[in-house]
Amino acid sequence: MATVKLWTDEEAAAHPVVARVFADIRETRKTDFINNFWRGLANHPEVLDRTWSQLKSVMTGPTTLGPVVQEMIYIAVSTANACSYCVHSHTAAARAKGMTDDQHAELLAIIGLAAQTNHLVTGMQIPVDEAFLV
Amino acid sequence: MATVKLWTDEEAAAHPVVARVFADIRETRKTDFINNFWRGLANHPEVLDRTWSQLKSVMTGPTTLGPVVQEMIYIAVSTANACSYCVHSHTAAARAKGMTDDQHAELLAIIGLAAQTNHLVTGMQIPVDEAFLV
Amino acid sequence: MATVKLWTDEEAAAHPVVARVFADIRETRKTDFINNFWRGLANHPEVLDRTWSQLKSVMTGPTTLGPVVQEMIYIAVSTANACSYCVHSHTAAARAKGMTDDQHAELLAIIGLAAQTNHLVTGMQIPVDEAFLV
Amino acid sequence: MATVKLWTDEEAAAHPVVARVFADIRETRKTDFINNFWRGLANHPEVLDRTWSQLKSVMTGPTTLGPVVQEMIYIAVSTANACSYCVHSHTAAARAKGMTDDQHAELLAIIGLAAQTNHLVTGMQIPVDEAFLV
Amino acid sequence: MATVKLWTDEEAAAHPVVARVFADIRETRKTDFINNFWRGLANHPEVLDRTWSQLKSVMTGPTTLGPVVQEMIYIAVSTANACSYCVHSHTAAARAKGMTDDQHAELLAIIGLAAQTNHLVTGMQIPVDEAFLV
Amino acid sequence: MATVKLWTDEEAAAHPVVARVFADIRETRKTDFINNFWRGLANHPEVLDRTWSQLKSVMTGPTTLGPVVQEMIYIAVSTANACSYCVHSHTAAARAKGMTDDQHAELLAIIGLAAQTNHLVTGMQIPVDEAFLV
Repeated sequence: MATVKLWTDEEAAAHPVVARVFADIRETRKTDFINNFWRGLANHPEVLDRTWSQLKSVMTGPTTLGPVVQEMIYIAVSTANACSYCVHSHTAAARAKGMTDDQHAELLAIIGLAAQTNHLVTGMQIPVDEAFLV
Repeated sequence: MATVKLWTDEEAAAHPVVARVFADIRETRKTDFINNFWRGLANHPEVLDRTWSQLKSVMTGPTTLGPVVQEMIYIAVSTANACSYCVHSHTAAARAKGMTDDQHAELLAIIGLAAQTNHLVTGMQIPVDEAFLV
Repeated sequence: MATVKLWTDEEAAAHPVVARVFADIRETRKTDFINNFWRGLANHPEVLDRTWSQLKSVMTGPTTLGPVVQEMIYIAVSTANACSYCVHSHTAAARAKGMTDDQHAELLAIIGLAAQTNHLVTGMQIPVDEAFLV
Repeated sequence: MATVKLWTDEEAAAHPVVARVFADIRETRKTDFINNFWRGLANHPEVLDRTWSQLKSVMTGPTTLGPVVQEMIYIAVSTANACSYCVHSHTAAARAKGMTDDQHAELLAIIGLAAQTNHLVTGMQIPVDEAFLV
Repeated sequence: MATVKLWTDEEAAAHPVVARVFADIRETRKTDFINNFWRGLANHPEVLDRTWSQLKSVMTGPTTLGPVVQEMIYIAVSTANACSYCVHSHTAAARAKGMTDDQHAELLAIIGLAAQTNHLVTGMQIPVDEAFLV
Repeated sequence: MATVKLWTDEEAAAHPVVARVFADIRETRKTDFINNFWRGLANHPEVLDRTWSQLKSVMTGPTTLGPVVQEMIYIAVSTANACSYCVHSHTAAARAKGMTDDQHAELLAIIGLAAQTNHLVTGMQIPVDEAFLV
């Protein structure tokens, strides 16, 4: 259960900023589905507006990486930050955008490997090589 | 300064496992340069051997993502895990493998955005939508 | 489900240290309600005693910040540490002590923003300005 | 050393977006000083623009918490995320805005306490009390 | 619910690599029980194979620490990384290998204390003493 | 550089609480050396007093694990929390108390392995097995 109310479509429709953002999410994503994250953020219309506008710009604007790679990077960060909801939602998004099982397998392998070497490096307090500082 | 000794080439040459791994790193990467991470891991030859073998398999084996995307995912995890050395070394690696400034900018934008929504989700304790559980 | 037993009031009453701490929690907080955290810690009476004594001193003693700000800082740390239980319990506590919806909105906005710039800084490995070191 | 170039004032002046943002930072903060974070973000003008605009809105706009509490929450998140630069810069900012030594002491006490109970809760996997779910 | 399929015994039996690894897990652990982690990893047979081989070598091979201490260190890392599943599975494993309630209490006390001083150190940005660098 | 003043012996001697705690640290540890952590905490005498009293009780009181294992658990948590100072100080302490190179190697191997499986579990969102909930 959330620590904030999850807004229904009726409640959203009654607030001008929330109504506008929800309409834009639906139009941008070509679906009527609004996931719980936005329904929770609706309690804070300004944060909702700014967060959606940033996410729309980064994740649906011009990209040099492509939508699948974008979502895989999102999964990587969400995994390291232990955000269960985010792993679920962005894995679903990555699949919807075309991530294959092989790509998912490779993504998980890199995440696991990176976590391991991150911890080994920190445990040994390895100093940065001069070669990396140029 | 590290909490373990960083092995010199002479010390490495005198230990059969370390010598073999260092030789394989050099041959695989086509460079004489061995970065400090491996020189620290040399204190634990078995861990060195296993870690290199895993990294070699994941990062230089067959890939569906390509070497630049692999390194960008590595940077994403290392950033979220606050591993300074790892951010330095894998940013250098990503650039050496062809990451452009635009790709780096987009990577950082996604990392920042993901961290923000990760924390917003956790702060609101948003429950996973049923739609994501199929 | 917890990895430890959650003590009932009957079990607590039968152990001198646990009984004393539970009584002090009830008296300090002016409520009969003992939340699960303390019922779990009861398995380790010494840790229970020390943790409650520390929490009582910090969170109910003299304060320059006031109880609402104290709880908001607690929420901020708990969110960054991805502690679901702690976010729930301290959001409830903050509200009980008077946190308004506007304050909650602003708290979440700062937490999200800080997480974003934390990750951007780490991703770029920004060196500390001399001006901050005075 | 950063993994990106830190822009000088001359370089910033030559790029329209960066020049505009740097000018706005100076005007908003009433100081000529631009800290390294923005000089690094300048490599990605769009991210710079969006990040500054968000930070300006959250940290210098209307507030129910006040500037000192805002900075203390920022410090709390930055500490939990282990961002050294951010702890330095926001501790300096909090002091500049009036944080007293007593407030700093209390902030650190809460951060330390929260981290401890966060870990105890996670180590025991305490389930959320029903009372917190209303 | 997982973001990947959890393989049944029938599905595992039909894939040569997965079947071999599952058989080895059963033989090594002297039990028919295969926990969900391996059933999820089965989607990525190569990662499954490598991860099991590494875990088998570290956790069931020659040890200077003994199996109970090994599991307690595993719990410590899993707690700090906020991995709920891992805390559950390794607490169960530690108990099965002989961890007493007193050892568990002491483990939790150290984890909580370390988290507290970790955060205090980071919040104060304490420089490393020269004495620790020898 | 720290964000707080590091107290000299002269400054400590002039404050009754700080003087008492510093004297107790010296007596308990049988050394004149006071590391920077305590010199920073001295700015907040109450926090200093409580933190030392807790650390003394946990790390130098009766133990079922022994001093070396205690320090190794401390290193594990500090590594996962990316606390550079803490990794340095507790690795030095573990060595001073008798940790061998083989034990250190095994500790690092478990930390790295745990981090890897923590991230794999989170990336796959593996549900807890019923067998672990008894």
